[in-house]
Amino acid sequence: MALKRVLIVGAGLIGGSMGLALSRRMPHLDVDAMEVNAAYREQAAQLGAFRRVWHALDSAPSDYDLAVLAVPVDAAVHLLPRVRGKATWVMDVCSVKRPIVEAMDRVLAGSRGVPSHPMAGKAQPGPIGAEESLFEGRPWIFLDTHRPPAEIEELVRSLGARVVWVPDADHHDRLMADASHGIHLASQCAVLAAEMDHSAIAEVAGPAFWDVTRLASSPSEFWVQTLSANRDHVIAWLRRFESAARAFRAALEQNDAAEVRILLEEAKRRRARADAARNTN
Amino acid sequence: MALKRVLIVGAGLIGGSMGLALSRRMPHLDVDAMEVNAAYREQAAQLGAFRRVWHALDSAPSDYDLAVLAVPVDAAVHLLPRVRGKATWVMDVCSVKRPIVEAMDRVLAGSRGVPSHPMAGKAQPGPIGAEESLFEGRPWIFLDTHRPPAEIEELVRSLGARVVWVPDADHHDRLMADASHGIHLASQCAVLAAEMDHSAIAEVAGPAFWDVTRLASSPSEFWVQTLSANRDHVIAWLRRFESAARAFRAALEQNDAAEVRILLEEAKRRRARADAARNTN
Repeated sequence: MALKRVLIVGAGLIGGSMGLALSRRMPHLDVDAMEVNAAYREQAAQLGAFRRVWHALDSAPSDYDLAVLAVPVDAAVHLLPRVRGKATWVMDVCSVKRPIVEAMDRVLAGSRGVPSHPMAGKAQPGPIGAEESLFEGRPWIFLDTHRPPAEIEELVRSLGARVVWVPDADHHDRLMADASHGIHLASQCAVLAAEMDHSAIAEVAGPAFWDVTRLASSPSEFWVQTLSANRDHVIAWLRRFESAARAFRAALEQNDAAEVRILLEEAKRRRARADAARNTN
Repeated sequence: MALKRVLIVGAGLIGGSMGLALSRRMPHLDVDAMEVNAAYREQAAQLGAFRRVWHALDSAPSDYDLAVLAVPVDAAVHLLPRVRGKATWVMDVCSVKRPIVEAMDRVLAGSRGVPSHPMAGKAQPGPIGAEESLFEGRPWIFLDTHRPPAEIEELVRSLGARVVWVPDADHHDRLMADASHGIHLASQCAVLAAEMDHSAIAEVAGPAFWDVTRLASSPSEFWVQTLSANRDHVIAWLRRFESAARAFRAALEQNDAAEVRILLEEAKRRRARADAARNTN
């Protein structure tokens, strides 16, 4: 198979950025989009990235080599039966993998479905925030259980992404609770825990405050869907998170400096493991 | 009073950076340091910022216009009675203000003590990490109850810092629980909550993970002292933090997407208040 015709289903931030990058870096591709939101459709057309921007799946032809589901998890699962007739291969870019894999295996009989997940985003949603470089240097996760054909892996690399393999959908979703979904909730909780007004806090805040709380500015709809789709692993993460906070509180309540030090050193040791792995990438 | 002779007590990251910046930006000042740690003393001498680096307070002369206590809170309280005879004015740069103010009011009868707090730091401790620009654009907090003479405010502005006033020591310490001490614990808890090994998490982590967890790399000793010195307000912050985490967990356990959305929107609204106040600074 050689990829020639690609349909991006959902011209939001991720779909728009994929369109921009593909049209500039793989100019031999014909890249179309389908977007149901009229404002997004207009913004997507203005990117100059898409040959056509369809307003509905039914209008689009059925001879694509690849369709990319760049919509929230629930929408991706819902659209899958209708996308199956439009393209040889169907890849998704959703943030949770179990519902997608379950639907792909059922609807596409497994063999034509490519679950994937680029670790990229920004606070500004929609195609208006699209950037050709959005995926540059970012992990793009595939599952060992659903290996893509070489052409699709190549396409992802052409976006500048770093291909990462994880064993399966459940492993992915557990990793995401630790690496992303829980991290987002930690940021929200750090904002919600404040006693003083945030305009007063801003006056005295250093970089630590701005870095740790910045995820509270993220688009709520995306996160409601993502957290709900991975709720079992996120709930388990929150239990461990509450337990860590209680351990710090108990040590401070007992004025036990040695125990506070042990907790800080354990966190430092774990973060250093992450740093070491990052530096060898 | 015109400032001519300054003694920095403690040539660590903050003291070393103050020395560098003052020697380059206020060359009419004589800036000395006192540092008990031999390795730090050698690194401080190599900065080329200090006229003399004393190894003990007793060796230093007693005719300084200003002594700056750039040591942890406990050490600052401990050194205050011995520093009072060395300089007309004594300023501290500690991260918690109630113990300092209590000691200054007792030992210096209030009038010569200037409690202050620059919101600056980095993961690398010691004078080896010192930077002339460390305070550039950063808040430097003074208390309305202990206003410094114009010369000291001028000195702080010459470091590039943005002078911020708060009503009193307790107000400062409450603000710090929200803006700094709690934020640090949120970062530690986000690391400690992980189920998977951090070398595997690093493979798939995006910028959110690195930003939110970076404070886990901070020097433990400084944080043990800071959290202990502000323990009542930090404990209260942790209770609110745990409560926020439980609220997210309850909403997810009940699969209540509307409630998850309410919590995310509330965090976003508060973070936007901080952003708005930041942008008007």
